[in-house]
Parts: sequence; structure tokens; C-alpha cells
Amino acid sequence: MKKLINSPDDVVTDALRGMAAAHPELRVDVKNQLVYRADGPRQGKVALVSGGGSGHEPMHGGFVGIGMLDAACPGAVFTSPVPDQMLAATQGVDGGAGVVHIVKNYTGDVMNFQLAAELAADEGVKVESVLVNDDVAVEDSLYTAGRRGTGATPLVEKIAGALAEAGGDLASVASVARKVNDRSRSFGTALTSCTTPSAGAPTFDLGEDEIELGIGIHGEPGRVRRKIGPASELVEIAASAILEDYPFDRGDRALVFVNGMGGTPLIELYVVFSEVARILEGRGVAIGRSLVGSFVTSLDMAGYSLTLLKLDDDLEKLWDAPVKTPALRWGT
Amino acid sequence: MKKLINSPDDVVTDALRGMAAAHPELRVDVKNQLVYRADGPRQGKVALVSGGGSGHEPMHGGFVGIGMLDAACPGAVFTSPVPDQMLAATQGVDGGAGVVHIVKNYTGDVMNFQLAAELAADEGVKVESVLVNDDVAVEDSLYTAGRRGTGATPLVEKIAGALAEAGGDLASVASVARKVNDRSRSFGTALTSCTTPSAGAPTFDLGEDEIELGIGIHGEPGRVRRKIGPASELVEIAASAILEDYPFDRGDRALVFVNGMGGTPLIELYVVFSEVARILEGRGVAIGRSLVGSFVTSLDMAGYSLTLLKLDDDLEKLWDAPVKTPALRWGT
Repeated sequence: MKKLINSPDDVVTDALRGMAAAHPELRVDVKNQLVYRADGPRQGKVALVSGGGSGHEPMHGGFVGIGMLDAACPGAVFTSPVPDQMLAATQGVDGGAGVVHIVKNYTGDVMNFQLAAELAADEGVKVESVLVNDDVAVEDSLYTAGRRGTGATPLVEKIAGALAEAGGDLASVASVARKVNDRSRSFGTALTSCTTPSAGAPTFDLGEDEIELGIGIHGEPGRVRRKIGPASELVEIAASAILEDYPFDRGDRALVFVNGMGGTPLIELYVVFSEVARILEGRGVAIGRSLVGSFVTSLDMAGYSLTLLKLDDDLEKLWDAPVKTPALRWGT
Repeated sequence: MKKLINSPDDVVTDALRGMAAAHPELRVDVKNQLVYRADGPRQGKVALVSGGGSGHEPMHGGFVGIGMLDAACPGAVFTSPVPDQMLAATQGVDGGAGVVHIVKNYTGDVMNFQLAAELAADEGVKVESVLVNDDVAVEDSLYTAGRRGTGATPLVEKIAGALAEAGGDLASVASVARKVNDRSRSFGTALTSCTTPSAGAPTFDLGEDEIELGIGIHGEPGRVRRKIGPASELVEIAASAILEDYPFDRGDRALVFVNGMGGTPLIELYVVFSEVARILEGRGVAIGRSLVGSFVTSLDMAGYSLTLLKLDDDLEKLWDAPVKTPALRWGT
């Protein structure tokens, strides 16, 4: 295993120290593994908290800031944060208007966020939980009952964060977050396995010319293994899986999110984007907004995921609203 | 070789098609391999043109937009664009105030940009050329006489682009670009080789626990191969090489740019950043600005480069000015 780390045990805290040094607009509690907006809590503003295992960077710490998350709780690599972290984050960001938990659908995350929400409610904090479960590839997996939460997560966080920043109340912010999740679908493809620092060896084996379709962001199994083919063919499979599950009609507008899994260069993501554009054009679907880059990663895995979000005027407006985080920034 | 491409011959044009589809604020001439600001040419504004081999994305096409480049000319993978491309870009962006060529110090790029500048001058376009040669690792290499141009390139482009946007004249824009290059130093480290689509096999071989210090962005040799060690040790070597070449004094402020080479996950870049912060703190050097991410890549190479730019008030102001490109964006 070759990684730019000091030791497998220190990778999360070392990376948090790096975030603190690089981003003074964040307040990073390295010991308790919490990333806050430095200017929080904001009185009267609904706050957003997310979290999950580390290894998916920039998700979630890189999405903390104006117009997106108020705090993130990173767990150990591919391991849910604990309820105490989530409770501390929830209490730390509450400005009296309530807190929205954005929870990717993995068993550990769901259980721990639920417990934290109950504990926070006992302390008088109003909490709404929003589940992200956009992955059409598999139902039930090693980590999940139902569908996994993947590429839709930053879209939910950006759009709900914009409404919170604009003064939306707890119910409205939770509602728009659920709306984004409901209108999003994702499908991932792995060219290589990831390697966790603690295991030091690939999580799974893929042959020299083999890929896995429908892969999860922890290297958990997808639908099928097959030989690699041209991008046009692989993207067709991903887009078809999404569009069969959630049809887009002629005239619909999509936010197209082509996401790198951590080890895939940007030039390949743009090749994928060109194939998605071709497919959507053939169906009369317009590309309303786009996002290309590695935002929901699986350590060093090579591969990509495609997410399509069906836009409307409200969602476009919230997407375009100013955001200032380490990983997504515009208008600020 | 596993890559998300259709064929090695089509990777650059397919990726450009993807850029065109994802970024309507760009005008992409796929056939001639040119990326322009859609709102150009801007009358009276000094224009910036850069270019070089593909495989380093988002450099340079991802840096085209408000406050940065007016056009980029991507060549084939790791191959200089041709003078005709550069000439077309230069003529296409000229708004009467002249054009600055930002040229990384590789033999092919230097020769072709020089020829293009002469041809443009014959057509009445004033051109200033700025050479980027920030890499302290090696003098003279497979691709270069003198020092290679690497991580400083986006810093030069961002800062000179800001001055051009603010109305700086040709001499001032070229001068601030040279100032950024003069005050920047870089050092790269490879954990793995890159694999070019046409070769289909790694450019060089590294053992299971081996790394190469001082690597170039085309996989060209660095200073030395050795066994991998903890990040603290590797970053110490890189930072020392930079600081021996260009000392920073107590009280100086650095822009710290930790750059991924294409196959390295963000969590590792933040581990590197924490080590750089520790070293600078020990020397009394402040982190004035920072940039963390994969901006100057070498296809799928795992590894990173460190760039330090010695800031002053003018450079900080220009760095903070609004920018709107696919890869760098704030304030717009």
C-alpha cells in the first residue's frame, strides 16, 4: 500500500488538521472530529448537519460553509460517526430555529443519527432527519437496507443549505432536501477497488480488464462484473438504469453530476460527461446545470458515478445561490 | 489499461465535447482544440492565452473564464499544441490591448508559442510571453532545458488574469505574471506512474513500496527513488528543497498549494497540508492563502506536488479578486 499518510490510525485527524490549516473559515475540532462554520451558530437560521465515514472527501467536511452545511461529523474511514459526535454537532450549530440532519442511507449512519436526534430533542433542539437514498444500482447491500445514499448527497446539501441561508424554516428546509433526494438518481462504476489505510490491501479484486457496474462508495458490491468497454457503452448502462427508474420527459431539465471516485482523472470525467450529454440530447432532455469533479469519493477507487436531478425553477434558483465551502464555491 | 474513454485517439476531443456540454460559459472549438471565454474577445482588455499537452486537467481549459484565461489550446496528451492553434487563440482573444502568452517551460511549448507570437506580431497583435519554470526538483529533463513549469502555472494565470480583468495594461499584466513565477517554487512526488491512453501501459515502473521524488508532470524522472515513508518525512523533503532554493523569512506569508497529480484522493492531500503547515509554523511563516486539490495533474498518477508562493499585499488582493472558471471560482 502506498498512501500519503503518517499511519492508518492518524489519517482522519491528520487530514482534519490539514483542513483547519487550509481553511480558516472553518472551525475544526480535531479531537472530537467535528467541522463547523467558524461564524456559527447563526441565531434564527435553520442549521444543517451531515456526517458519515471518512474516505469520501470532500464529503462532508468540504461542504461546510455559507449556504451549505453548518457542521459535519466525520467518522473513521468507512465507519459511521458516533451519536455523541452528531449530538455535539447538533447542539453546536443550533441557533434556535432547528437542525436538519442529512443522513445517507447506511445502517450505521441511520441508527446513530436517529439516536443523536432523540438525544438532541431531549435537550430541546428541534431536529428533522432527511434520508438520502438515490442509488438505483442495488437494493439492500453490505451496508444498507434499501437504497444507498451516494451522489445526490451534495446536491441535497447545497440546495437545502441555500434555502436555510435564505431564511427558510425547519419544515421548508427539510422538505426541499427531501424533494432533491426524491428527484435524484445515481449509478456508480468502478474500474479499480479502493484500499483502506487499515486493511492496506484492495477491498476487492478486479481483473486487468474488468470493471464493476453499480458499485457502492465503500467498495460494496454492485450489480455485475464485466469486461471494460468504451465509455459510450458504460455510460449508456448507467444512464439507462437511472432513466428506467425515474423517467425524464422531453423538455425536462437535468442537473448532470459526473463524479469521480477518487482515483479518476478529470479528463475521463469529461469524456463521460460528453456521453451523458449525447444520451440526454437524444431524449430531448436539457442540461440545466452541471457539476463535474470528485466530490463523493471512495478513497483511491478509479471510477465514476452519474447522478441526474430533475430540476425545476425553484431548485435552479437555490442551486445558483451563493455558496462558500472548501469544495463548492460561487457568488461569495 | 482501464480508462473511461472511447479510444486513445478520441480522448482529447471527447473531453472537449464534455467541457462544451458542461460549461456553456465557454466556447469550445472541438475541431481546432481551442477553449475560449464565450463572452470574448473583450475590447480593451489584455487577453491571456495558455496551453500545453492534454493530460493535466483542469489545466488549462478549466482555467478559462472571467478573471483568468481568455483561451487555452490543449495539445494531444503530453504533446505541445501546434503554433496554428496558439495563433488562432491569440487572434481570437485579442481586444486590441495585447495578449499575454503563459508558457510552461517545456521545449515544445516554448518553441511553438514563440513561433505563434511571431506570427501574431506579423498580424499586428502585441504579444508578451511569460515563462513558468517553478520546479526546483531538476534542471534539464527529458522535456526541458532549465526548470520545468508545474504548480505555479495556475497561480500565475489566476493573478495575472485578475489584473487583466481589472484593466491592467500589457506590460503590467506580463510583469505581475513574471513576479508570481519568480516568487513560486514547486516540488512533486509520485507514488505511481501515469499511463497514457496511447501507450496503454505505465510510463515508468515503481516497486510496490517505492516512490519517486522530484517527478515531472509527464512522468519524466525526478531526483531519486526511495522507499515510501510517512507523509511527515516526504513533505519535509519537498518543503526543504523549496525553502533551500528560495528562503522564506519569519513573518513572510505563503500561498500554500497542495496539488494532487490525478490519482490521489483529497484526504491524503489534507494530510500533506497538515505537514506543510507544521513545517511553516516551525519557521514562523504564515499561511496567507491556500489551495488544495488536483489542478495540475498527470493523468492517473498518484502523488502530489507542493508549491509555495511568497505573497505580498498586491498578490493577495489579486488572488482574492473574483474568478469564474470551471476549476477555480469565487466572488462570481
